[in-house]
Amino acid sequence: MSVADFAAWRSAQQHLVEQALSDWVRLDAPAGLGEAMRYAVLDGGKRLRPLLALAACDAVGGRRPVALRAACALELIHAYSLVHDDMPCMDNDVLRRGKPTVHVAYGEAQALLVGDALQALAFELLVPADGTVPDALAASLCRQLALAAGGHGMAGGQAVDLASVGVALDQPALEAMHRLKTGALLQASVMMGASTGPMSTTAREQLTVYGAALGLAFQVVDDVLDVTADSATLGKTAGKDAAADKPTFVSLLGLSAAQAYAERVLDQAHAALERSGLPHTGHLHALADWVGRRSH
Amino acid sequence: MSVADFAAWRSAQQHLVEQALSDWVRLDAPAGLGEAMRYAVLDGGKRLRPLLALAACDAVGGRRPVALRAACALELIHAYSLVHDDMPCMDNDVLRRGKPTVHVAYGEAQALLVGDALQALAFELLVPADGTVPDALAASLCRQLALAAGGHGMAGGQAVDLASVGVALDQPALEAMHRLKTGALLQASVMMGASTGPMSTTAREQLTVYGAALGLAFQVVDDVLDVTADSATLGKTAGKDAAADKPTFVSLLGLSAAQAYAERVLDQAHAALERSGLPHTGHLHALADWVGRRSH
Repeated sequence: MSVADFAAWRSAQQHLVEQALSDWVRLDAPAGLGEAMRYAVLDGGKRLRPLLALAACDAVGGRRPVALRAACALELIHAYSLVHDDMPCMDNDVLRRGKPTVHVAYGEAQALLVGDALQALAFELLVPADGTVPDALAASLCRQLALAAGGHGMAGGQAVDLASVGVALDQPALEAMHRLKTGALLQASVMMGASTGPMSTTAREQLTVYGAALGLAFQVVDDVLDVTADSATLGKTAGKDAAADKPTFVSLLGLSAAQAYAERVLDQAHAALERSGLPHTGHLHALADWVGRRSH
Repeated sequence: MSVADFAAWRSAQQHLVEQALSDWVRLDAPAGLGEAMRYAVLDGGKRLRPLLALAACDAVGGRRPVALRAACALELIHAYSLVHDDMPCMDNDVLRRGKPTVHVAYGEAQALLVGDALQALAFELLVPADGTVPDALAASLCRQLALAAGGHGMAGGQAVDLASVGVALDQPALEAMHRLKTGALLQASVMMGASTGPMSTTAREQLTVYGAALGLAFQVVDDVLDVTADSATLGKTAGKDAAADKPTFVSLLGLSAAQAYAERVLDQAHAALERSGLPHTGHLHALADWVGRRSH
């Protein structure tokens, strides 16, 4: 797949997702809650999780209308986690995607409710009353999302992260933390998208490997960018992890070894796609490179 | 139904729910998150939402194992809302069910994650991998729970509540706020429980009326107790609403008129059950009286 073809595909999907999110995150939630929810979700972000879900759907020839709902549900979970993560009692960050964070713009109490309501809305999207999503698939998607978001997934990883400030984690412990904190939702993005179509056992196994490798590469590159990029490029505060004395792949391995590690993990992601036997993995391959070689 | 029979039934159901919650809110979520989640959920509360779900299940002859999952899911949503509500940026309460609130015991960041993880777990309970819940029912329950909890339900009501401090709401506006803030989840408790069995159109309509009336009675009595009971009896800080200059049924109607209003609303709840045509509504009747005449 050419760079231009991938960029065009990505842009088209991002537009689809933006439109769907704008339809589904309604302004009319009361007392300004809808407005604040839209502020938290719209006009921002790479939409990596939706792109993974849609590309995985296409790889298995799955149901696109269902995958779009899954894509948006995943993005809502991600968006809520950022809103809560940015709050003063967590990372106390004032800048996100180049804009004031939700609690800065709307107050802490409203930010708390925005995150809570976005999580509920994520599940609502998966079980529409219009029959778009067959019941068995809806139940499976809800289950996957709940597991990826909860105490043994993303929220659990955040708890480990909280507990790890100033602690000398080794590489396995650091990877275990990220496998929950960011990996679970990225992996769920791939598997939920792929759930919308038929999958062989081999394809399921290899997509699982792909999702895990992509999640790990994402985090290693995140740590690299935290020391190599500036805040304007990142759209968030750079150098936060070092300042907070948090363990990172760079603090553990050094910068160039961390960069080399990201490349090795990316190779694993590509190899898994090759072994999957799926015919239409071009966008998944391209997404791995996009994650692994991004500059923000 | 005699007072003693109802007390025995209630105690038996509370025990069932406590055991199920203890099984399902696992200690092994990492970095102390599981412990804090269990602290937030176990050994406390009247379990009103679970009792409503189980009684509604019995009223329609529904599936008990499914209703128990719905009951616990509802309680987890309620518990998460209390954890977040108690945080310093919301009500800043230090006492709940006679114990220090979660953020006092475990810190604000962990309390935020506890609430987030409990919400995800609520949905997880409704879609078990073991086939306990038929797919169509699982999808329906997830939808009902998401709607009741989200921006057009509980979280939306909390946003209205935030915006109403020091504002002179009239009675319709106050009732609209409570219909979302506490009413949506109480009504969902009745309807989710009843969804586990067959329901005529009449039964569905009248259970909806019952749930709405019970939710309103609950809130009117809550406001009455806020001025008539002491903190030790309530297990939470009394007099908070008046101190916070929040509109209440007592500030709007006066104490004795508020008490009389609660009685009238209770009568509506009972009348709806009579009209439902359902044969086994004894526990739902008794729960309405329990809510309307409680002392804490």
